Amino acid sequence: MRTINQLQEIINREVDRLDFPIYPADLYEPIKYILALGGKRIRPALLLMSCDMFGGDVQKAVPPALAIEVFHNFTLMHDDIMDNAPLRRGKVTVHEKWNKNVAILSGDVMLVKGYELMMNVDDHLLRPIMNIFNDTAVGVCEGQQIDMGFETRSDVRIDEYINMIRLKTAVVLGGALKIGALIGGSTSEDALLLQTFGEQLGVAFQLQDDILDVYGDPEKFGKQVGGDILSNKKTFLQIKALELADEQQAFDLTRWFSGMQFDPKKKIAAVTGIYDQLNIRHYAWETMHTYAANAFEALDAISLPPAPKQYLRDFADGLMVREN
Amino acid sequence: MRTINQLQEIINREVDRLDFPIYPADLYEPIKYILALGGKRIRPALLLMSCDMFGGDVQKAVPPALAIEVFHNFTLMHDDIMDNAPLRRGKVTVHEKWNKNVAILSGDVMLVKGYELMMNVDDHLLRPIMNIFNDTAVGVCEGQQIDMGFETRSDVRIDEYINMIRLKTAVVLGGALKIGALIGGSTSEDALLLQTFGEQLGVAFQLQDDILDVYGDPEKFGKQVGGDILSNKKTFLQIKALELADEQQAFDLTRWFSGMQFDPKKKIAAVTGIYDQLNIRHYAWETMHTYAANAFEALDAISLPPAPKQYLRDFADGLMVREN
Repeated sequence: MRTINQLQEIINREVDRLDFPIYPADLYEPIKYILALGGKRIRPALLLMSCDMFGGDVQKAVPPALAIEVFHNFTLMHDDIMDNAPLRRGKVTVHEKWNKNVAILSGDVMLVKGYELMMNVDDHLLRPIMNIFNDTAVGVCEGQQIDMGFETRSDVRIDEYINMIRLKTAVVLGGALKIGALIGGSTSEDALLLQTFGEQLGVAFQLQDDILDVYGDPEKFGKQVGGDILSNKKTFLQIKALELADEQQAFDLTRWFSGMQFDPKKKIAAVTGIYDQLNIRHYAWETMHTYAANAFEALDAISLPPAPKQYLRDFADGLMVREN
Repeated sequence: MRTINQLQEIINREVDRLDFPIYPADLYEPIKYILALGGKRIRPALLLMSCDMFGGDVQKAVPPALAIEVFHNFTLMHDDIMDNAPLRRGKVTVHEKWNKNVAILSGDVMLVKGYELMMNVDDHLLRPIMNIFNDTAVGVCEGQQIDMGFETRSDVRIDEYINMIRLKTAVVLGGALKIGALIGGSTSEDALLLQTFGEQLGVAFQLQDDILDVYGDPEKFGKQVGGDILSNKKTFLQIKALELADEQQAFDLTRWFSGMQFDPKKKIAAVTGIYDQLNIRHYAWETMHTYAANAFEALDAISLPPAPKQYLRDFADGLMVREN
């Protein structure tokens, strides 16, 4: 079985070789640009890995893996417009380098190119795989819309939040793994179990991200600690804290999250202080571990030899280790 | 064979019955809204007609026809953002009624819903029909980008312009007819001929639109006569005039098309005057008729009895009649 690093290298090489027309340049250049920004290529690599685990031909899984990567970058291109993001992976975003119209339209054609790539599967898998891809794409759009809707709400519940992160980030992991499994020749039961593994693990990862934003080691954590607090972002921690807060704590939290006018250090310290009083870190860990445990339970149930399952478990554990 | 009116009624009924989730509302409400604005439903009706012509079951062609209509409205929703259009069919556009982010994301999910609907075909047709749909979608995106690129260019050639309108508006007609033909059981040769018919006719329609904008009867023509001139829009007439103009005429045209600061009536009269001097109307008619003739030639070559072909010819003639 290939390692995740070997599979990521395959993806990087194949992304470089992806061929787009030259004309019209403002439609296709942005696609090459955003794909060249890099990224860990986790989603397509996991698709290849899941094919490999079931003894499938990894080469046959390359076009669908590229489809997932192109699709993922389409969502980034459109999300960056919606978030008014100036930078993506340290480089200027497409809508800033070109303009918003270019980013809308290049994104649109990327989604179509994703479908084109995804169709490179055997006939008997075409319909099931396209159905998974459709469901994945709908889920991501729903997740993004729900997330945008949260911005103007103060009554978001934990179950709504978890459903949002499941749709926005986890269904793609689950979909990629399921598609790879089917290409690898798995039964539909095993493919479904692997999808569950991916989705539950995706939720756990996102919860971990929420925790690390506040409690992460600034040296290891790639982003500014407290960034979510400063931007008043809805996270598991914020929602849980508002749920558990007494009157005074709720008043204070609401005030801190009411705008951008505060001293950053004071704001982070004050909000983190309330989180600590309410033991929010513990609740977040507990929920994260519940999702990770669900993921591993699904993995255990797959009818594969211990070695490939252990590899996937180690890989997931490795991603979880960066927690503290 | 059903009439186009009967088929349009089927589409209107089925569009009303299209079912979208309730949550998240800001993702799905805009889809229902734009689809309820109406329109002539020509593209899906032609898909049904082409299925019907070959003796196919029109009911089986309904989901792909709806796919074409949903796809078409996705392009309208995103085009309206890019064009900053306040109104669509006399009603507020989605990005104005909600906001741009909602219009981007609802459009994205509409494209996915288009794919979902298009997949409701027999297994042996799934791959060929998805390929046509992909090509159609790519064409429309390319056409829109090329059109946007024209805005800042003064050296657009007639062949580039015709390629743009072919991609932006004609390939959808061709694609719809081809898909309908395949569902109806046509040979691939006949499906290709019908696609050619649709594409060539689509170009002829767009050229007719360009002519009517300047020379149409204000009573019959739905839009403001001279609207393209006032908005400095690249049309066949403008490009051809710049191509044929002498130095003085070129200077005058360039000045009139240099901005919005002119008196509308004077501007329309002056530009139309130059068009008349250069006999532009004649060239435009000639080119339009060439494309219409190509369309009818392709139609003639289809191996179908004269009656259905005559119906399609009459229908197309009817659309062409509104010229003067």
